[in-house]
Amino acid sequence: MTRSRPRRARPPAGPPLLNIPFRQPRQPRPAEWLDAEGLERLHNASLDILETVGIDFLDDEALDLWQRAGAQVDWAAQRVRIDRALLMATIASAPASFRWRARNPAHDVTIGGDALAFGPCGGMVYAADLDRGRRPGTMADYEDLLRLSQGCHALHFASWEQVTAHDIPVNVRHLHRVRAALRLTDKPIMEAAHGRVIPADTLAMLALVFGPLDSDPVTGDVINVNSPLRYDERMLGGLISYARAGQATFITPFILAGAMSPVTTAAALAQGNAEVLAGVALTQLVRPGAPVIYGGFTTPIDLRRGSPAFGTPEAAWATLVGGQLARRYGLPYRGSGGLTSSQTADAQAATEALWSLWPAVLGRANLIMHAAGWLDGGLTVSFEKFIIDLENLAMFGHFLDGFALDDDALALDVIAAVGPGGHHLGTSHTAARYRTAFFPATLADRQGHDAWLAGGGQDAAARANRVWKELLAAYEPPPLDAAVAEALDDYVARRERELADARLYD
Amino acid sequence: MTRSRPRRARPPAGPPLLNIPFRQPRQPRPAEWLDAEGLERLHNASLDILETVGIDFLDDEALDLWQRAGAQVDWAAQRVRIDRALLMATIASAPASFRWRARNPAHDVTIGGDALAFGPCGGMVYAADLDRGRRPGTMADYEDLLRLSQGCHALHFASWEQVTAHDIPVNVRHLHRVRAALRLTDKPIMEAAHGRVIPADTLAMLALVFGPLDSDPVTGDVINVNSPLRYDERMLGGLISYARAGQATFITPFILAGAMSPVTTAAALAQGNAEVLAGVALTQLVRPGAPVIYGGFTTPIDLRRGSPAFGTPEAAWATLVGGQLARRYGLPYRGSGGLTSSQTADAQAATEALWSLWPAVLGRANLIMHAAGWLDGGLTVSFEKFIIDLENLAMFGHFLDGFALDDDALALDVIAAVGPGGHHLGTSHTAARYRTAFFPATLADRQGHDAWLAGGGQDAAARANRVWKELLAAYEPPPLDAAVAEALDDYVARRERELADARLYD
Repeated sequence: MTRSRPRRARPPAGPPLLNIPFRQPRQPRPAEWLDAEGLERLHNASLDILETVGIDFLDDEALDLWQRAGAQVDWAAQRVRIDRALLMATIASAPASFRWRARNPAHDVTIGGDALAFGPCGGMVYAADLDRGRRPGTMADYEDLLRLSQGCHALHFASWEQVTAHDIPVNVRHLHRVRAALRLTDKPIMEAAHGRVIPADTLAMLALVFGPLDSDPVTGDVINVNSPLRYDERMLGGLISYARAGQATFITPFILAGAMSPVTTAAALAQGNAEVLAGVALTQLVRPGAPVIYGGFTTPIDLRRGSPAFGTPEAAWATLVGGQLARRYGLPYRGSGGLTSSQTADAQAATEALWSLWPAVLGRANLIMHAAGWLDGGLTVSFEKFIIDLENLAMFGHFLDGFALDDDALALDVIAAVGPGGHHLGTSHTAARYRTAFFPATLADRQGHDAWLAGGGQDAAARANRVWKELLAAYEPPPLDAAVAEALDDYVARRERELADARLYD
Repeated sequence: MTRSRPRRARPPAGPPLLNIPFRQPRQPRPAEWLDAEGLERLHNASLDILETVGIDFLDDEALDLWQRAGAQVDWAAQRVRIDRALLMATIASAPASFRWRARNPAHDVTIGGDALAFGPCGGMVYAADLDRGRRPGTMADYEDLLRLSQGCHALHFASWEQVTAHDIPVNVRHLHRVRAALRLTDKPIMEAAHGRVIPADTLAMLALVFGPLDSDPVTGDVINVNSPLRYDERMLGGLISYARAGQATFITPFILAGAMSPVTTAAALAQGNAEVLAGVALTQLVRPGAPVIYGGFTTPIDLRRGSPAFGTPEAAWATLVGGQLARRYGLPYRGSGGLTSSQTADAQAATEALWSLWPAVLGRANLIMHAAGWLDGGLTVSFEKFIIDLENLAMFGHFLDGFALDDDALALDVIAAVGPGGHHLGTSHTAARYRTAFFPATLADRQGHDAWLAGGGQDAAARANRVWKELLAAYEPPPLDAAVAEALDDYVARRERELADARLYD
């Protein structure tokens, strides 16, 4: 069991930093963060919720699938109650790991096991940088973000709707987004699983590039739960479309604890786990063996201000324990990194980002979304924050490589030759390794005060502004067969005509 | 074994972010970070170094202690070679855990086991804040830093030479520092173990407050190794003085890998471990059972610029594995948090600080030094960075408390009552907890873009500037018996006369 925190009375006035009681933290550092007894308690609570409270599926096809499977369906309320034996038997067909294909096979990724992949932020309304400030995103912004994500291999994914292209009509925006991703990147494609029309277009366009989509998935997306305990029609259309086509879904309750679940971390975890399990089971009812990821996105709501709080200790626990739950069910795990409420790429942004990223890595997430660019509680993608995050992701990549421990690395002969009181600056052992021994920082400034001042005294955000321009200048588009490019153009042109009056989001 | 990193050729031109190969990190997440075989390999390498290469002790009393113990002493070279059986038998008397007394018993701390304590930065030359810029530190700066450290219980220690008081003559500076710490704080005292005169003064002044120093320690300090493999006279004077008086020493090689050890992490760990073990053994030769802490401070030197790099993946590994080594020998462990090369309290500062702090916590450090205020590679203490760090430490304190998992926290009845599609904002469960459910942030701004702009659009450093002034304004000095205060003044006055012409650092 985790320790329970002592109950506190209403906090006194003054900055919270002044109201901390004097006591020493105790380190919890088991092989897993939550012990087996606690994990089973959460598991059983979740199954109780699905059996007794039930969960809403606002889609007739979903309800029909549940009814055929033997669940108890209340059609009037669109509510399903799921027996624990049925639930566990249904999710058993979900794969523990799968390959996600990219149009460049060198960029295929594994989702599951001990493999990790980082993806950029997604769903942002605004784009921001130090030159142009914060403004509604455009297709040009999205294309630049695709280029940054393609060029730097700290990210394993490039496409996701990193920012809304407000200059493209909403009814055809997805067509332009998919085409841009396929033109500008050759990493795996992440695209919106919204309703049934958009996924059908996405899959048709991907088939023009990949051929028949009859093997490992080539796209995937988040399926959010409308917590508490409800899947809406748009999300269910996406889930059913993607699962049927063998594409990946990341079943993710977006829980602001205190609003969309009870305020306590334990309750948020129990409810969220119930929501994920029901969604995972539905993918398997659609198509046994469909690739599906256990997603977690639980964070507190700052109840005094009504705004979400990111990079918090509570969210860290939810992320760590979510990973344990995913492994309990044999499912790949999706976490989030880089989250922050900050409005600018400052110390708060970096602090909260690392309070998201460290727990996601420690929680053994297989896919870490929102790992680059996120600012402003998820409303804004910042080009400078993007670079700050990329450096962090590169550091994690380097860190997770471990270090060599062979005779050459131990270098006992070198230690003996230099001897006590000497130095290692000039040894051949150092000279042979000094360029590649350590993580090569791009953004960090270590040149000392005077040189830093002489160079303009820039902070990390100002330097990041220079770096994203350097990365964009160095960008090279990956080759794309001319016939395929033309087929994509034809598809987009035809569907633009057909969807001219469509209202996909009403 | 950890995985060995593929050897890379000389890196190509362009920002390192563009030169990352596309491959997925693999998660290493054992119960311990390095497996038992790797740990024994490091252990044996260290013992080999002490047996065959030896280690220098530039102090006759230390050499005499080694000779009496049976080590092989080369008096001309001041070098000692230590048999592994002698070494292991000698360190066995060091305690696994001890109590460190404060003058307010409510502020006693435990060093060892699963207890954690945070201390502020120390040894800084400059003080900096946004109003006054960067300038050589003064006694007034040190006193303000003592007040901040006393007031906020995210820190368990207040005194350390957080900044040099340049306005006090160096030969009597320690007297003023100890007196200020005893006047302004009642947390445990950390004071300089430099040579033999300064510790004698410190212990005499502490005895005026504590009475005879014949039980658990009331002070302690870092004993740095002059790596590679050398203890100098000043450090040995401190080590012997403190150990003989039953006070705490933190034996800490300050290794810039590539300069003071081979460039490889494995070699830095093996050499550093040898250095710590020799120092720990010496404390036990002085006084069996003397409290002593296994210290780690290993970080790469940026060999292209000749400057140290802080908050790096390599330093993270050294910190994590250092903790395992400390536990292998049954010793408390000292790590470092808050390190950065940045010149300003920006995203780089926060990133590198958290790349120090997370590994130190995960490495189960019992004492985390430099956890607040550190900037500029350790040359400058920043008042704004101090506050940014305090918030982080408070978050770790909260995080390490875990979360409750009882029926009240699981709240299944509340989940059922709200039901699918409802919300939890107005429930009595939420209302009873919303003020205290989550970590109460002082510095983080979560109010959204428009409100943030309307409030002046300040970044975290600008807000921290306001917060440290609030904390100073709220400071209340802890009571100190008037007779004790007078005795301290008398002691300082007498020793100022006696040390008027002393040259303590020549």
